Amino acid sequence: MPPSDPRRLTPRSPASPAPARELEQRLIGVNACLAAFARRPQDLRKLWLAERQRELRTMLAWCVRQRIGYRVVAAEEIAKLSGSDHHEGVCCAFLRAPALNLDALLHDLRAGPALLLWLEGVGNPHNLGALLRSGAHFGIAGVLLAPDSELTLSPAALRIAEGGAEAVPVLRLEQREAALAQLRGAGFALAATTPHRAQSVYAAKLPARMLLWLGAEGAGLPATLQDAADLRLSIPGSGAVESLNVSAAAAVLCSEWYRRHVAVAPV
Amino acid sequence: MPPSDPRRLTPRSPASPAPARELEQRLIGVNACLAAFARRPQDLRKLWLAERQRELRTMLAWCVRQRIGYRVVAAEEIAKLSGSDHHEGVCCAFLRAPALNLDALLHDLRAGPALLLWLEGVGNPHNLGALLRSGAHFGIAGVLLAPDSELTLSPAALRIAEGGAEAVPVLRLEQREAALAQLRGAGFALAATTPHRAQSVYAAKLPARMLLWLGAEGAGLPATLQDAADLRLSIPGSGAVESLNVSAAAAVLCSEWYRRHVAVAPV
Repeated sequence: MPPSDPRRLTPRSPASPAPARELEQRLIGVNACLAAFARRPQDLRKLWLAERQRELRTMLAWCVRQRIGYRVVAAEEIAKLSGSDHHEGVCCAFLRAPALNLDALLHDLRAGPALLLWLEGVGNPHNLGALLRSGAHFGIAGVLLAPDSELTLSPAALRIAEGGAEAVPVLRLEQREAALAQLRGAGFALAATTPHRAQSVYAAKLPARMLLWLGAEGAGLPATLQDAADLRLSIPGSGAVESLNVSAAAAVLCSEWYRRHVAVAPV
Repeated sequence: MPPSDPRRLTPRSPASPAPARELEQRLIGVNACLAAFARRPQDLRKLWLAERQRELRTMLAWCVRQRIGYRVVAAEEIAKLSGSDHHEGVCCAFLRAPALNLDALLHDLRAGPALLLWLEGVGNPHNLGALLRSGAHFGIAGVLLAPDSELTLSPAALRIAEGGAEAVPVLRLEQREAALAQLRGAGFALAATTPHRAQSVYAAKLPARMLLWLGAEGAGLPATLQDAADLRLSIPGSGAVESLNVSAAAAVLCSEWYRRHVAVAPV
């Protein structure tokens, strides 16, 4: 096959300006792949399948029609391509969405209720994936990663997000203080989650435009961020475990905000 | 060393009535091991460590004092013993708590608000672990596994529960219809979680004694169970993802029940 044949799945032609892996994002898992395909089929670059799954038929037909490279390969190869065994027999490469900065995100926000999550010290990509899925369910406006965060949108995180990463922008902050000022300027109140000197989230008045800080389990939020917060929230409980998992806490907090500002329920 | 020396860590003496592995439960992860040790130190049987961790000092001292077998081994051995790489350098064996049946669980319940979760078709042990941690946080009365459930309290599930399995009884039901009758007899209303023909959990009146049915993602609850329910609940959302993860949904639903019946918040 000549190099120009897209089905050859070469990583890039020698003339490419940047390595394909920087421009492309690998996805695994049926739902994550289908969600990206539903939103931006034009960005699909490659598809690897362990077998011809019924649910992926439309995607496969698109590849044939658009002359996008696809391959039926061994499951082990998909594990190697994605760095995960939990790939559900599918991996695909999408053109990475252009990196977003906080200015652009805030500029594009509609007026009215909006919830942003800011992750400090959360290191587990599974938690990021779970947060994105719950955040997408509750229609949050974005997830902000601390400047020194090690989190990335890995194939594992994207699989667990089950398409949530397509609906929720994720960006890495450059500088904390500048971000705080920008967020305040856009009308966001800053809520820290902490068990110390905090109000119950059930009793607190939650602002319509709210930035929710979530810290590492165990360590929690650094004191400087806790001090900068406009409100401090805790999720009351029995005390039988030390805390909720960070993604379970996020689901509960997003739900409380959604209940009051979006669902506007009578209870 | 003679066979009677507990530090020898032999699985059992030839005269034992049952294999040790049936009587014992293996735990991994610092928090899960410490939670079991805090509740029932007398049940600790063996301890394997990859290194002498500060947090496990008290547990190690107990082993020495009580002549309970402990070993410092390679991390790979702990992975082999537990079937998981995420062991945080510690594995221990506890005497299994006696199996509980629904009769005994209902008999021991105090009058007043109580929440039970019934899992139908939930197969992922990580979800069971996450459910137990959130359930423990919100003080639920127990988790009931469907008769044909494949879930077990595996080391991986127990690690993710972070001690939640010590606070929340888990039992496998023998027969669905009999269980339903028992639960109704104990004053439980049966709430199915389903997106179909359901009330918003935010708007619904939640019974103080509530059995919450959670089904498999994708398939959801079987229609027969949905029909048997006294109420049908959904968690409203944006529609950007198909559903919440089952453990995130459980966290949100437990929180809603806890807010109204235990925290009794003014909002």
